[in-house]
Formats: sequence, C-alpha cells, structure tokens
Amino acid sequence: MTDKHYIGMPLQEIDTPALVIDLKVMEDNISRMAGYFAGIGANLRPHVKTHKCPIIAHKQLAAGAKGITCSKLGEAEVMVQTGIQDILIANEIVGPRKIKRLMDLAARADLMVAVDDEKNIEDLAKAVRAAGVRLGVLVDVNVGMNRCGAEPGKPSLELARKVHASHGLTFMGIMGYEGHVVGVADPGERSRKGREAMKLLVETKDLIERSGIPVEVVSSGGTGTYDISGPYPGVTEIQAGSYIFMDAHYRETGIAFGCALTLLATVVSLHLPDRIITDAGMKTITAEFGMPVVKGGEELEVIGLNEEHGKIRTRTGKSSLTVGDTIELIPSHGCTTINLHDRYYGVRNGTVEAVFPILARGKSV
Amino acid sequence: MTDKHYIGMPLQEIDTPALVIDLKVMEDNISRMAGYFAGIGANLRPHVKTHKCPIIAHKQLAAGAKGITCSKLGEAEVMVQTGIQDILIANEIVGPRKIKRLMDLAARADLMVAVDDEKNIEDLAKAVRAAGVRLGVLVDVNVGMNRCGAEPGKPSLELARKVHASHGLTFMGIMGYEGHVVGVADPGERSRKGREAMKLLVETKDLIERSGIPVEVVSSGGTGTYDISGPYPGVTEIQAGSYIFMDAHYRETGIAFGCALTLLATVVSLHLPDRIITDAGMKTITAEFGMPVVKGGEELEVIGLNEEHGKIRTRTGKSSLTVGDTIELIPSHGCTTINLHDRYYGVRNGTVEAVFPILARGKSV
Repeated sequence: MTDKHYIGMPLQEIDTPALVIDLKVMEDNISRMAGYFAGIGANLRPHVKTHKCPIIAHKQLAAGAKGITCSKLGEAEVMVQTGIQDILIANEIVGPRKIKRLMDLAARADLMVAVDDEKNIEDLAKAVRAAGVRLGVLVDVNVGMNRCGAEPGKPSLELARKVHASHGLTFMGIMGYEGHVVGVADPGERSRKGREAMKLLVETKDLIERSGIPVEVVSSGGTGTYDISGPYPGVTEIQAGSYIFMDAHYRETGIAFGCALTLLATVVSLHLPDRIITDAGMKTITAEFGMPVVKGGEELEVIGLNEEHGKIRTRTGKSSLTVGDTIELIPSHGCTTINLHDRYYGVRNGTVEAVFPILARGKSV
Repeated sequence: MTDKHYIGMPLQEIDTPALVIDLKVMEDNISRMAGYFAGIGANLRPHVKTHKCPIIAHKQLAAGAKGITCSKLGEAEVMVQTGIQDILIANEIVGPRKIKRLMDLAARADLMVAVDDEKNIEDLAKAVRAAGVRLGVLVDVNVGMNRCGAEPGKPSLELARKVHASHGLTFMGIMGYEGHVVGVADPGERSRKGREAMKLLVETKDLIERSGIPVEVVSSGGTGTYDISGPYPGVTEIQAGSYIFMDAHYRETGIAFGCALTLLATVVSLHLPDRIITDAGMKTITAEFGMPVVKGGEELEVIGLNEEHGKIRTRTGKSSLTVGDTIELIPSHGCTTINLHDRYYGVRNGTVEAVFPILARGKSV
C-alpha cells in the first residue's frame, strides 16, 4: 500500500507497528510554545532531532520559530533540501569529509555550527576561505553537562578570539546546552540548576563582549528548561525539541505539553493474562528511559521488550484483550523511537489525515 | 558521495558513524557454521533479522543453508524481491492487512509461518483458500521462553490437528525458540537447559506423530544453542542468526565465532582524558545489553551514550587520542544496532571492498 491509501483510514486499521501522531495535540504543543516565545525576548529555534521531519519543521517555522536546530550535518542537508534556510547545527563538525559537506551546504543555506577545539577552528576557517562561503560559528561552552564544550570563562573567550580573528569564519556567539538539567524532575531544583548553568553561559558572553567582541547569539535550552533559560537575561535562543510530542519520560517532569506520539501495536499472542505479546519490540520502540506506557490502559504494564515482541501483563490478573486487538504505547523516549521509523501516521478524531515521511531518520552521519 | 566512491578507501576515511564489516571474519563465520551443519543431520536456516541484508543472505545460501528465517513479513518481502524462495517467518502473522500481504507473498515464494492461536489458524486457512496459494504452517511451541507459543504436549497437538484438518493450510511441523537459553553464559548450564527445551519440543513432535500427523519440520535454535539443539535427535532446522557477526554480548558466552562488526566513530571533542566524546550515540549503536566495547583499546571504556554522542574514559588517565581520530566500537547487540543503519562498509585488509545496503532495515511491519 502506498501512503495515500492510508488517508481516511480508522486508526485501528493501520498496519502495525506504526508511529502515530495525534495532530490536535501536536498542533496545540506548537501553538503553546510559539505563544510563550512571542511573549519574551528570546527566540525559539526548535530542535528537529526529535521529529526528523521537514513537514513538521515547516509547521514550527510557520508558527514563528526563528529557524531550526539540528544535531547532525545529515539532518541539516535533508532540511535544506526542503527549503529551510536558517539552521544551527548544535554540534562540532570534525574531519575533512564532513567539513567538505558543510561547505557545500553553507553555499546553499544560512548556517551556524558549534566549535570547541582550536584545530577544528583552523580547519573550518581554511575551508571557508577556499570555498568562499559564509559560516556562522558559536563557541560551545560546557555549562555543566560535561560533554562537549570548552570551560566557561577564559577558555571559551580564547576560542571566541580565535574564531573572531580567523580569516573566514563569522563569530556569532556562544551556546551551552544544560543537558544535565532538562530532565530534573523537581521544578524548584530544575530552575535552580538551570539558572546556575545560564549564569555560567551569560558571564562568558559578558567576558567576550568586554574583550571587544560582539556576541549576537547566546543559545541554550531544552524542553525541560525553555521557561528557565528562555527568560534568563542575555539568552537569545532556545533549542527545545521534545515539546513537539512529549514522551513518558519528559512527562514525569510535569512540563505542560501533551503526549502527541504513540506506537500502535497489535496483540499477536495471548495465552495468559500476564503474557500478552505484541508486535512492538526494541526495533520499533526504545526503552533506555524506561518501558513504554500503555495509553488509556492503567491496568496494563509493559514488562519486557525483545527485538520484535513486547510483553505486557495485567495488574488485575484479567484482560479483555484478544489476539488481533490493537493498543497504543506512549514511548518513554520519543527521539530514539522516531529514529527507528520511516513515517508518521497523522490522526485526527480517530482517522488518518496525513502521512509524514521521516526524511532525516538515520541521518546521523 | 555515492556508495561506489567508497570502494578502495582506507577504513579510517569513511565518513562516520559507519557500520563496518570485517569481511574475512564474516566469511570465516559463514564457513564455520556451514561446515558444522554439513556434518550433522539438521539443516541451517539462518535468521536474517540480524543482518537484514539480502547480499549476506545469498552468501549464507551459497554456503549451503537450506533457506532463511525472518522475524517479520516486511523482511520476507524484501528477501523475496532479491530472489530468495525458501523462507520461514518464525512469527505469528495476525490481522487482515498482514494476512493479505502474506497471501501475496505466498504466491511468489515457498513460505512457512508460525501459529499459536485457533482464530488465527482459521483466518489463515480462509485466506489461503480464497487466494489459492500454498502456505506451510509450523505450530509455535513454548519451550520455556514464555513469549509466543502454545504449551508443549496436548495444547500444541490440538493446534496441529486444527492446522492439519483445515482446508487450505499445509501442516509442516513445529518450532520452539529457546530464547531463554541462548544467552546463558555457563556452557554446562546452557547445554542442560537447551536439552530440556528440546525434550519438550521433540516430545510434542512425537505426540503429534502418534496421533497420525506427520511432522516434517522441527525448528529451533539460536547462535547460543546451535550445537546443542542442532544435534538433538528429532530437530531438523536451526534458526541461528547472530553468528554472522557475533557481538560483545554473545561473545561473553565463549561461542567460537569472530566479531565481524564494528561501528567506526570519530572523536569530536576532547578536553579531559576522562571525557573523550565521539559522534556515536544511541541513534547509531544500542546499549540494552551493555555499553559497546572499544576494539583494540583495552585502556578505553565507553561510559555513556547520549543520542548522538558517546563518552569514553581512559582507565589509565591518559590517552593519545585527539579530535578527529577514529576508533572502532564492537556493539553489545548487533541486531538492534544494525537496524539503525542503511549500509555496511565491507572492509578487507583495512580497505573498503564493498558497500552492502541493509534493505530490510526498519522492516518491522
């Protein structure tokens, strides 16, 4: 069946396992986040690594987003092919093969990339001069996640100076992802830790500006901290991504977006109420943040995933499910679950309204 | 770059993250397993859910495999498109949409499917009569994994009778996957538990035959039990899949196949020897069976994966790695890691010899 045959089909008839978007909930999430950023100084630059879908990125842009954020060059290449122009690749682009691709892309779009290494800055500057393109650069500052990024303060200033002094690169500012904060469940602790991280970032911005280098962009933030980092004085852009769908893991933080994403699965074997077997395993839904949650099925608990099977038990010891029935699972981690699929089925009022290809699925290179 | 531009390229120059096969090791694994089955009565029907690659399936068939095993109908559809004819779908095929696809495929290939439910048997029989195709059926027996499958003995006999008496279905035999045994690390315990499972399976075969129904196929086995279940009297086919590449998890069982699969990754950020950051995260290598292992890097330990980053520490406190260097990671679980990728780079003596598309990647529907 081609995608168009699904339009108008009842949700329960989609061939499973299938990734399903509740379109109304997604649209509400887009509006709510856009509305929040319409009211503050900072801009929203949604991270597309969550949905990996140009159609959805265009909806976010239409709602007012300044541009998009990508994790990977391959994602950015896909997005540029669909006409998106203003892209932050919030990651280090390393090695001659990737830098060549980056130059090709910079000739076609308005790009910013992150840097945290002197040699990489030299490589990028040399490539930009050879290609004759414009490339915006953000110095990546470690605000406490201890992943990529130079230390705040002087080490980041040194890199900013190097970028600014380079022949070729356009120094745009700094970024710092508070990834160690976004999932903190307690709102008070999340706010305190988020502000600590932003203090490091904005102090670094101030240091760079005092040295005479203007800082136009200060980028940070995720779905867990958009309303902490977004209004923090000096921050100009927020990279939130997961808000588009939410997931069971993020929902535990109490952040007020709706769960728009489910995996439709079919019961394929059932001999005991504690051994309800579905066709949704690790190859279609991920579990690194915990087991998926059965939507509207409080009595049902996912107790295990094999590659192509899920095992569910009933807390009550009985179930009305039978072989062939479908259920919806809320992923614990949307970003990695989506990366397993080639398309979304967009559903409204129980009927398929659209099929969205996940064109950046697997674009990790 | 198109795939052909990679031919002849040194391993270290492949754009990363990239899934790499050591062709010599894979070929040795194919030969060793084929040689083992040449010497016993049972046949090898390799499971392609591991590699998901028709080119590799054809190599296994050329080495003597009787046919292939698939987990999913979508995998079988891909394999039939490449000319493979003899396929066991070792899974229940449930629901009208999937059964329609199964009939279409049965018109073009010699298929067997698993059943464990009376209503499903009726649905399949009705569809086979309407389509006028031949469909081989194996009754799925629960030999202790407690996933799919009817209980051994009488419940399985009842299903066999139902298939045999159906107008349309071709009863071929039984299958029982000892998935609870394949990963048992201790060889003695693995052997004992494997033989217990096969006893249940073969006793069920005997019961069915005593009732006057011939049992041609008794299928079981994985890479952890091929040499336990394979020679067990009465077993006719083994479904091993992971042996093709092995992985860090299976290697712990001491099974004598070589690790042929690695993920080539690049160091993208390095500020401290305990914070070596690579471009290989959860979207390119899985961790449900533990962290990946650095090939040839005993002093290096993968301590964490984010979506697009891996974090490595040195046990010695120092490292000669620098930004831009590549390393190879041995996946802890090949099957789910491969399902994230679109192609393998086949390498011999450090040079890319072939690029194999992973055509059944994501074919979980």
